[in-house]
Amino acid sequence: MSAKEFDELFNKVCNWGRWGTDDVRGTLNFITPAHVRTAASLVHSGRSVSLEIPINKLAGPDNPRPPSHYMVQTYDAPNRLGQPQFAKDYLAWEFHGDCHTHIDALCHVAYKGKLYNGRPSNAVTSQGASIMDITAYAHGIVGRGVLLDIPRLRRVKWLEPGEAVTREELETAEKAQGVRLAEGDIFLFRTGHHRRRLELGPWNNGYNGEGRAGLDTSSILMLHERKIGAFLPDGDGEVVPSNVEGVAYPIHALQIAAMGMACCDSLQFEELVNVCELERRWEFMVVVAPLRLPGGTGSPFNPIAIF
Amino acid sequence: MSAKEFDELFNKVCNWGRWGTDDVRGTLNFITPAHVRTAASLVHSGRSVSLEIPINKLAGPDNPRPPSHYMVQTYDAPNRLGQPQFAKDYLAWEFHGDCHTHIDALCHVAYKGKLYNGRPSNAVTSQGASIMDITAYAHGIVGRGVLLDIPRLRRVKWLEPGEAVTREELETAEKAQGVRLAEGDIFLFRTGHHRRRLELGPWNNGYNGEGRAGLDTSSILMLHERKIGAFLPDGDGEVVPSNVEGVAYPIHALQIAAMGMACCDSLQFEELVNVCELERRWEFMVVVAPLRLPGGTGSPFNPIAIF
Amino acid sequence: MSAKEFDELFNKVCNWGRWGTDDVRGTLNFITPAHVRTAASLVHSGRSVSLEIPINKLAGPDNPRPPSHYMVQTYDAPNRLGQPQFAKDYLAWEFHGDCHTHIDALCHVAYKGKLYNGRPSNAVTSQGASIMDITAYAHGIVGRGVLLDIPRLRRVKWLEPGEAVTREELETAEKAQGVRLAEGDIFLFRTGHHRRRLELGPWNNGYNGEGRAGLDTSSILMLHERKIGAFLPDGDGEVVPSNVEGVAYPIHALQIAAMGMACCDSLQFEELVNVCELERRWEFMVVVAPLRLPGGTGSPFNPIAIF
Amino acid sequence: MSAKEFDELFNKVCNWGRWGTDDVRGTLNFITPAHVRTAASLVHSGRSVSLEIPINKLAGPDNPRPPSHYMVQTYDAPNRLGQPQFAKDYLAWEFHGDCHTHIDALCHVAYKGKLYNGRPSNAVTSQGASIMDITAYAHGIVGRGVLLDIPRLRRVKWLEPGEAVTREELETAEKAQGVRLAEGDIFLFRTGHHRRRLELGPWNNGYNGEGRAGLDTSSILMLHERKIGAFLPDGDGEVVPSNVEGVAYPIHALQIAAMGMACCDSLQFEELVNVCELERRWEFMVVVAPLRLPGGTGSPFNPIAIF
Repeated sequence: MSAKEFDELFNKVCNWGRWGTDDVRGTLNFITPAHVRTAASLVHSGRSVSLEIPINKLAGPDNPRPPSHYMVQTYDAPNRLGQPQFAKDYLAWEFHGDCHTHIDALCHVAYKGKLYNGRPSNAVTSQGASIMDITAYAHGIVGRGVLLDIPRLRRVKWLEPGEAVTREELETAEKAQGVRLAEGDIFLFRTGHHRRRLELGPWNNGYNGEGRAGLDTSSILMLHERKIGAFLPDGDGEVVPSNVEGVAYPIHALQIAAMGMACCDSLQFEELVNVCELERRWEFMVVVAPLRLPGGTGSPFNPIAIF
Repeated sequence: MSAKEFDELFNKVCNWGRWGTDDVRGTLNFITPAHVRTAASLVHSGRSVSLEIPINKLAGPDNPRPPSHYMVQTYDAPNRLGQPQFAKDYLAWEFHGDCHTHIDALCHVAYKGKLYNGRPSNAVTSQGASIMDITAYAHGIVGRGVLLDIPRLRRVKWLEPGEAVTREELETAEKAQGVRLAEGDIFLFRTGHHRRRLELGPWNNGYNGEGRAGLDTSSILMLHERKIGAFLPDGDGEVVPSNVEGVAYPIHALQIAAMGMACCDSLQFEELVNVCELERRWEFMVVVAPLRLPGGTGSPFNPIAIF
Repeated sequence: MSAKEFDELFNKVCNWGRWGTDDVRGTLNFITPAHVRTAASLVHSGRSVSLEIPINKLAGPDNPRPPSHYMVQTYDAPNRLGQPQFAKDYLAWEFHGDCHTHIDALCHVAYKGKLYNGRPSNAVTSQGASIMDITAYAHGIVGRGVLLDIPRLRRVKWLEPGEAVTREELETAEKAQGVRLAEGDIFLFRTGHHRRRLELGPWNNGYNGEGRAGLDTSSILMLHERKIGAFLPDGDGEVVPSNVEGVAYPIHALQIAAMGMACCDSLQFEELVNVCELERRWEFMVVVAPLRLPGGTGSPFNPIAIF
Repeated sequence: MSAKEFDELFNKVCNWGRWGTDDVRGTLNFITPAHVRTAASLVHSGRSVSLEIPINKLAGPDNPRPPSHYMVQTYDAPNRLGQPQFAKDYLAWEFHGDCHTHIDALCHVAYKGKLYNGRPSNAVTSQGASIMDITAYAHGIVGRGVLLDIPRLRRVKWLEPGEAVTREELETAEKAQGVRLAEGDIFLFRTGHHRRRLELGPWNNGYNGEGRAGLDTSSILMLHERKIGAFLPDGDGEVVPSNVEGVAYPIHALQIAAMGMACCDSLQFEELVNVCELERRWEFMVVVAPLRLPGGTGSPFNPIAIF
């Protein structure tokens, strides 16, 4: 795709102004109270499943700056106040990263100097984001989650780095699973990225490495038309290297900067797919609860699917 | 209460062995699939409400070690890969603290050298907790939340530091609100701690300060009899100073070490009470999703109530 | 002093271009090999004295963001490689602060958008300082240290917040101590700031607190004329509140932005003064060794005086 | 060397009790005022040279937990107090590491449960080291530095991983360079470790990697007999894998736990050797100034050689 075609696509899916010039919730506007009720009505077995990768403290090719986790206090030193005693810890983290489950705030991505809704990127300073920080999602995202499991469709364990999933394939997956992405849905997109990591070990999935599998840009039009509320992929939705001339991460630019979509990165669906297969269904209630971090460009989180 | 009476109470509410010697889920065992279904059936209006205090980066008497939040990257330096550009941040945190919403792992509290289920406290080392870390709650806690709003009952804005809420008063609050704490419930206990902070400013709520309001030890018997699944207070449930001889934080010792109860600290219900009053109900679905932090003694989190 | 007079003073002491347009060493250019030899020739008794405040991990009015210091590993967990075992720690730090001994890089201060030598302040980005970072002092600062002890002159324990030391008083102190600040010297300036802290406890020494004692702007002309190489105060040299209209920290603006002076903050001379009195001399060898932190705006350090 | 022979060597070089049961300075007791004077008398040209590796923020095989360095504040946001403006940064660090120049406290190493002077290793808890922390070196280490440059002797660029330098070779190097290690000296030991890293790139120098060059255990007897005051190597003095049965890091055990020697790790002498060759001398004044970190097991630092 040429740079010019990309800009045309950007404009086509652009939601700037759609919900007012001050809007900071973007595609979450598609999720109505009725959608939340519908989501809750999907709860039958009471199973809940985490979509988070356990926090990975081990350096590796996709984890060059591993979280720092230290004990602040264990039971090895007397407590000044007597009984009981407490153990405490400390966690320090660059949580945007290729093996850390996190959600992106709308201020996380700028395309040609503009954030979502056309706001200037210099609203993010050394003091944090003054607009569209992660607190825009403070009260959580609750809705119907729909998993499209591409490796299942292809009968492979995972997609290989560089592979792209087109709109057509997403639609085929819908049919194979008997689901259909609809307005206000939370779209869980599985390439098997984390499964590959579990079985083959970590790899450098960036531009100076082997890359990753993700969405073809054609899929973005579908997400736009279907009025998807939020996007939860394993991997981060991107194909690396991208097939867009001069745009390294086109999916982020389209989803976040153009569409204002609530996007997450680096989830894992390995526990989820077992439950889906067991219950023979790929829709469920999803609850996403980012930390209320003022000025934050995102948040680590543990998204929960409830069946 | 004397030290001896406390130990008797400890033994009375002790759940060690109740769910097997290897159990690490404690009172979460009270929450069954039926409870999750019931919780989901409470979703009508689709409103979701955060119970988290926005992350407080400002030092103060109850925040002596404020979180460190820095930008890793803003839009002020060229991106080596061209468009789009990304903003990223870093968050470092001693999340156990008196104004940070967090959940405690069962390994967080030891009474006389023992964790819940009689496990030795030296299972927590400089390398983290080897048992009963926060990953025991990896798949989240989902259930019916019931708020008992004590300031509402007393017709005050908040309880003053040092005030204790007895079993009798909890039961009176149940009647006044038309709810009843039942097996497997998630108990939200409001003293108005955070409301006081919002209106009067932060105060030192520890033993070298003004203290805090919380549960009388008599209430613990009630929670035990009712088979509460999880405990979510503003403040942390403790009365400071405590009325137990030689035990500084008796509620933590009883709830966590004796009962194995999933306990959280420092929530805020100021947004929640508005919705409760509006909907005239004090029960709702609750979703708690701690980070999957291996070895962690707890986790920051954003608990969500869904109406 | 009016804003206009301040700008005239700024221009008067301005060293921009003095050592070339690319210079990043500023007043360190005054320290020649002969000065280093002279400094070494002052070593007689072999006593060495630290000028650093022990790292203060306790929050307080002048320490709102205390350093984080945690054990990475103690001897409580078996070492995978057997004997010997190792204990390790972690230190995290906003080291510019009012009770942390540190040195400022020349990029640390901008006056009206300009750094020393007229360089643009936007050379400091979220990625660090691209010019005049602390690595400009990588090979250390070695020279003759001269202490002017103002409380000694005034026969008080310390100067009170808000008090200013004029050029005249500095010259009187020189005479009283029998020393004279000369070209290339390292000037140690004592107000007794840390002594006050030790005896009265910490106080808020900023604009929203009680303030601090420091140099009157008249003293800057003297430092300029005398061609001082580096400045090491207890406190940070500033009088708070300042007596310059509209300039909150005039000494930093003059010393660092105008003069390009190697400046340090928050040293302590309480051990030093004892040695000075014992040896009846106020000159000695000084070695300053900032960490080689690429992009850094300064460094924590432990300056050493050798007698 | 067998485990039994190692324990015999340990006992032979053991300084426990030599300077009293409460001693925490170990071999620094060898450095007298006369040694400091002698060191200062070596200052002729006034050149000062850093022995620190610039802080390395890039993850790699010998840097699995790179330092976190972020801007706290740049010039992109208005300063509440007007002019001047300030830029500040934050540095977080596990400073014991194989490419970070640091000094070890005596509490850093335990052999069979004992620290130097026979003190129990459980004196180091989650609250830090209660004895023999790095503040024992608060006032710095000043003395005569002597560099033995083994690659120079062997006419190679560096020693290869696994190579060991015997006592005999050290003595040959002394003769080749016309120096002799004497009582109270600071011994700089060069294997070319950092030169290799600069030219070939980083490598895993641990037991699960390629290893490193260092001292043969025979050399330790020489250091003991010569009464060396402090040890500053590139690398860390260890041969990996070690040739001692069952002891992974024998040099640390001998130097720190047995001898109480002030030891540093991961220096770089690439700038130093140029000055040595230029001045045709391998002795100079050295100043080591660890941060005064209470409870710390070591400190990052920038050791300075002065000619």
